[in-house]
Amino acid sequence: MKPEQSDCDLSRFFAPRSVAVIGATDDTTRFGGRLLRQMLKFGYGGKIFPINPRRAEIFGLECYPSVSELPEVPDHAGLIVTGEKVLGVLEECHRVGIPFATVFSAGFSESGTQQGREMQRAVANFARTSGLRVMGPNCYGLINFIDHFAITATHAITGPVEGGGNIGLVSQSGGLGQVNVMWRAMQAGLKINYVVSSGNEADLEAVDFARFMIEVDTTEVVMMALEGLQDGTKFLRMAELAAEREKPLVVLKFGRTEIGSRAAASHTGAMTGSDEVFDAAFRQFGAIRVDDCKDLYETAIALRGRRLPKGRRVASISVSGGNMVQIADIGCDLGFTWKEYSARTQERLATLIPSYGKVSNPTDMTSLATGKPGLFRSALEIITQDDNVDIMVPGFTFARRADLDCAIELCRTSDKSVIVLMTGCCVDDAGMTVERMVADGIPAYRDTLVCLDAVRAAVGYREFLGNFRRQRDLVRPPGVDVQAARALLERAGQASLTERESKQVLAAYGLPVSREMLAGTADEAVAHARVLGGTVALKIESPDIAHKTEAGAVRLHVSGDAHVRAAFGEVIRAARNYRPDARLEGVLVQGMVERGIEMMLGVARDSLFGPVVAAGFGGIHVEVLRDVGYRIAPIDEREARAMLRGLRAYKLLEGVRGQPPRDIDALVDCIVRLSWLAHDLRDRIAEIDVNPLIALERGAVAVDALIVQRDAVTD
Amino acid sequence: MKPEQSDCDLSRFFAPRSVAVIGATDDTTRFGGRLLRQMLKFGYGGKIFPINPRRAEIFGLECYPSVSELPEVPDHAGLIVTGEKVLGVLEECHRVGIPFATVFSAGFSESGTQQGREMQRAVANFARTSGLRVMGPNCYGLINFIDHFAITATHAITGPVEGGGNIGLVSQSGGLGQVNVMWRAMQAGLKINYVVSSGNEADLEAVDFARFMIEVDTTEVVMMALEGLQDGTKFLRMAELAAEREKPLVVLKFGRTEIGSRAAASHTGAMTGSDEVFDAAFRQFGAIRVDDCKDLYETAIALRGRRLPKGRRVASISVSGGNMVQIADIGCDLGFTWKEYSARTQERLATLIPSYGKVSNPTDMTSLATGKPGLFRSALEIITQDDNVDIMVPGFTFARRADLDCAIELCRTSDKSVIVLMTGCCVDDAGMTVERMVADGIPAYRDTLVCLDAVRAAVGYREFLGNFRRQRDLVRPPGVDVQAARALLERAGQASLTERESKQVLAAYGLPVSREMLAGTADEAVAHARVLGGTVALKIESPDIAHKTEAGAVRLHVSGDAHVRAAFGEVIRAARNYRPDARLEGVLVQGMVERGIEMMLGVARDSLFGPVVAAGFGGIHVEVLRDVGYRIAPIDEREARAMLRGLRAYKLLEGVRGQPPRDIDALVDCIVRLSWLAHDLRDRIAEIDVNPLIALERGAVAVDALIVQRDAVTD
Repeated sequence: MKPEQSDCDLSRFFAPRSVAVIGATDDTTRFGGRLLRQMLKFGYGGKIFPINPRRAEIFGLECYPSVSELPEVPDHAGLIVTGEKVLGVLEECHRVGIPFATVFSAGFSESGTQQGREMQRAVANFARTSGLRVMGPNCYGLINFIDHFAITATHAITGPVEGGGNIGLVSQSGGLGQVNVMWRAMQAGLKINYVVSSGNEADLEAVDFARFMIEVDTTEVVMMALEGLQDGTKFLRMAELAAEREKPLVVLKFGRTEIGSRAAASHTGAMTGSDEVFDAAFRQFGAIRVDDCKDLYETAIALRGRRLPKGRRVASISVSGGNMVQIADIGCDLGFTWKEYSARTQERLATLIPSYGKVSNPTDMTSLATGKPGLFRSALEIITQDDNVDIMVPGFTFARRADLDCAIELCRTSDKSVIVLMTGCCVDDAGMTVERMVADGIPAYRDTLVCLDAVRAAVGYREFLGNFRRQRDLVRPPGVDVQAARALLERAGQASLTERESKQVLAAYGLPVSREMLAGTADEAVAHARVLGGTVALKIESPDIAHKTEAGAVRLHVSGDAHVRAAFGEVIRAARNYRPDARLEGVLVQGMVERGIEMMLGVARDSLFGPVVAAGFGGIHVEVLRDVGYRIAPIDEREARAMLRGLRAYKLLEGVRGQPPRDIDALVDCIVRLSWLAHDLRDRIAEIDVNPLIALERGAVAVDALIVQRDAVTD
Repeated sequence: MKPEQSDCDLSRFFAPRSVAVIGATDDTTRFGGRLLRQMLKFGYGGKIFPINPRRAEIFGLECYPSVSELPEVPDHAGLIVTGEKVLGVLEECHRVGIPFATVFSAGFSESGTQQGREMQRAVANFARTSGLRVMGPNCYGLINFIDHFAITATHAITGPVEGGGNIGLVSQSGGLGQVNVMWRAMQAGLKINYVVSSGNEADLEAVDFARFMIEVDTTEVVMMALEGLQDGTKFLRMAELAAEREKPLVVLKFGRTEIGSRAAASHTGAMTGSDEVFDAAFRQFGAIRVDDCKDLYETAIALRGRRLPKGRRVASISVSGGNMVQIADIGCDLGFTWKEYSARTQERLATLIPSYGKVSNPTDMTSLATGKPGLFRSALEIITQDDNVDIMVPGFTFARRADLDCAIELCRTSDKSVIVLMTGCCVDDAGMTVERMVADGIPAYRDTLVCLDAVRAAVGYREFLGNFRRQRDLVRPPGVDVQAARALLERAGQASLTERESKQVLAAYGLPVSREMLAGTADEAVAHARVLGGTVALKIESPDIAHKTEAGAVRLHVSGDAHVRAAFGEVIRAARNYRPDARLEGVLVQGMVERGIEMMLGVARDSLFGPVVAAGFGGIHVEVLRDVGYRIAPIDEREARAMLRGLRAYKLLEGVRGQPPRDIDALVDCIVRLSWLAHDLRDRIAEIDVNPLIALERGAVAVDALIVQRDAVTD
């Protein structure tokens, strides 16, 4: 990971007053020729300085042999030179005072060669030390639709595009971003404001460009197509900024699978990271994750316009009953509800269409309403005004313009979310397509599932924002002694803490741990067992034996002096047998915890996002069913509760099969505390495994725990 | 459920030599006018007889007052009359000898009124008794693109469509079928041969129309959009016919959710059935289930052409690296593999492009190959020929015609599956769209996920066909005594069999049950326990106590004469206490089975598909995690094995966390036997619950079981 540069204003990068194109040519079969031709055709209003020592003029522009000989200092330089020459040219750019460069050249870390990696490192170092900010190498440039500045070579744009846009796009890949997302989004009727292809990201990263786009007032949504991230925390800070500004991020993240990661590595050299943690981070910080390129812009259609649905209660109305069956079915699957209309709505509909009797939701208007815009409009308006309705989805198959116009007008004027679904076309105005409606700012869709999936994302984003605002005062819970925990870690002296030491650290953060005492002799064990009362467990305490059960050095359910004494001897013998040179600090005598549900809490360090807290049910739930929740630490109670609720076996905690409900509040508290421990001591902690944490009817108890310090990992 | 009519040849229904339109008019604002106008414009070559007592001529056709006065007997009559008149008109049609009628009229069972239901029942009865076959009521007619016969009123077709088609579509809903599926499929480049909207299905059902389409030689795929089914078994027989002919069925089934079912009931009056069982039936019989209308035709694109992929090994090649990352990622998620190319392929590629070094799969050709069709073609061909490749997906963003042509040619000539993915467009031939390629018979897609999902369906279908062929000799396992089992059920005398009786029935089908003996006295219990040896369980045996544990009338882990004697008394007392009037037949003394994994097998009767066998892990796996597999009985070993493998916790059987593997063959045998029991005695059995079935290291044992006979359900 490279050191973070201080935030930098990218305004002149995106909208330079003048630009140098190093490696420009008039041969449009070559990249440098196509790029320059496109820059001109796109309507750039600033000065363009082609740089090419072998030309005097290109496309009517005066050509210069090098940036050193330019009459003024451009804001931005594009480099289309062979990879080996890049560093020298960047140095020259910096000498003359150019602040921004875009490096198109390939052959860097994506090549997979030692030389390529070294060249990239040199570019990164130069950027950091000089302050010249660099996009690329191996990138595909940018398009600024607002200021008509394009520095790229693509078939996606041919001439000037008027009217600005409100959706930003950051992609590492060029082709995928400019074609699969940008061009397709424009075809779908959306208007883009900025597009970058950030390539290998030796210096400037996807996150930097996203931050710029969020800060531009007109941006309403930012789409990101990522193969990897350089710095998870930086991404999260950017996501927080997006949340503060209420600008949704829609993210496609590749490299989920091994083959995908390998392909990403050889494409932009990106680190792909753990996909489960990405997923958790995205959800936690409100980034909407999608599965394919088209989902990026299809989701953006419902997210634009700063009018997110206020809830999940949908109504729908159509002349096609089949469409209503489908929308009800798909909607229910996606978590929407279809409330009955209020008595007031029924009354109003009854005067309108007396023959209908009670009108159900979704509403099949049947062909009675076909071509009767007055009737359709009235029913649509009455239902949309119903207090039980947050979202109205009028469904059209072959639509009449007049009916569509009713829906469009309502979309513009209603305080509810109105989303138009047209599976066919407009029969009396072929130009009134879904794309046209989208271009006019209307959330409109052709397919039920795509439509409702996007609306679900919009509802979910509104819910996220509500929690995000409440959550801003993320505070450490009471009864946490950071210094004591740190001292315990330092005192431990070695990487893997013993069970007792580990639990002392947990206790310093207020996590409830089993009552236990260390016995050096069998007599002490007997005495301790009497103090603890009832049945006890005996476990070896040794810095050299992390897996006590594997060593056979654990005895459970022991009671009575004679049995305790015998168990002490057995535990010691088993430990000696397992590892003769182990340092034995004694035998831990623990009060047995009553029967409860075995949970597992954990902390791991993610290479990108840092400390991650995990929670799940013990045993097969984690190992076989992979039923585990993750969050980036620290988290609050709401997030911890959501984490538990997200477990497939959550109902076990509520009590099933005659079992009593468990103390979910206590579990939530444990997770929150553990997340703060992971966060506060992230410089020291590599891993924590609290397994089991017993969920009781009242409270919860950590019965075993293991903390591994970071030195152990880097040793 | 209505009695099944014998199969009927629908040729004249779909392609009548002459047709009567009852309720025809020249007013094209009305359904009867639009329908007739469309029939004429669509190029129907047979005779059309408009029926309307108030007209002499419509659109230049001689008009008749009634079918009785026609000069000849038409093959097919369309009814556009008010619902109340339908039955009378059908009777008249039958009198003159018309064999087929399509009833467009509404107001039948979909109205939700008693009158509507009665009218529909009358139509159904008349069809059954007369032999006149009826489509509808409340249907939207049909289109036969092969013979240019359309009897419907839609904006989806305007004039004759040339060139025939190879994809059939059966939909209950008219608008959804004709717009969301048919029109959209045609827009996407597909060619339809037949479309029906079967409406309320008083007589002819979706399945009848699908069967007709399967039997037409030119049909390659049949798409179905169902809100419900009348008869599950009839669907399965149709699906078997489709499998024999190797014609994939792609099915969209609505009414999955409560709201969706309610909407379906008020739309076509369809019974929606249990969605889990639908899912199981579709999978078991090779029907490919999809989630939205567009998935029907998008899947059909990959299924056409009778060239299904031979395996799951994909290769891909593109000039866009980002697309290759995406295809690898999505492909891996969907279960495809990306093998390394063979040494031979590497050698051949090395001579072609020496600079590449080792070429990985998927292959990023980089912009080196842009616009070099010779290079692209050679690489494409070499890789497609690789022995490790079953499927080639060349990926294009902005494509050149020459490169596309290479892929198209390979698609036509290769014995491998070649699927074209073009996320952008063709830059030097705007007409060469994905839709155009599809129209030319090429499997082509715009989106990676949609593309690979469809290809996965094609691979899965080929795998299904392979198993289907092997599976045709579905035979009852040895050691099954059908007569003995039947006799036991008959002898039981009442609905719920006791545990002992239930296990005797299972034993007659060769299922292993725990060793047990019935004791009438404490002395007998002691004697039995000695015979059984080791620890035993004691359970009340009473026809009146189905839930023994709830009654407290079970004692487990009992050993020693004194304990057995005491337990006998306790069990009897608990039973008397629980239900003083219960008939007590004694106490069952069972040998305790060694520890194993608790499984649950079951049989239920589905309202549509009949006996269904279920299998899962016991306890929370069924109740909380809903980790249960279903199949329509009977099944073979392969299917039973697939059922177990489909369980999320399957790994438990293979042995995890130091546990030994379990005898999966024994479990498979139990499931197969139980499925035959469910099938053979389906006239008597309502439910079977084998819970637990203990999976041992060697063998499996049913420790408790309950069989409920059908009388109990209908009582």
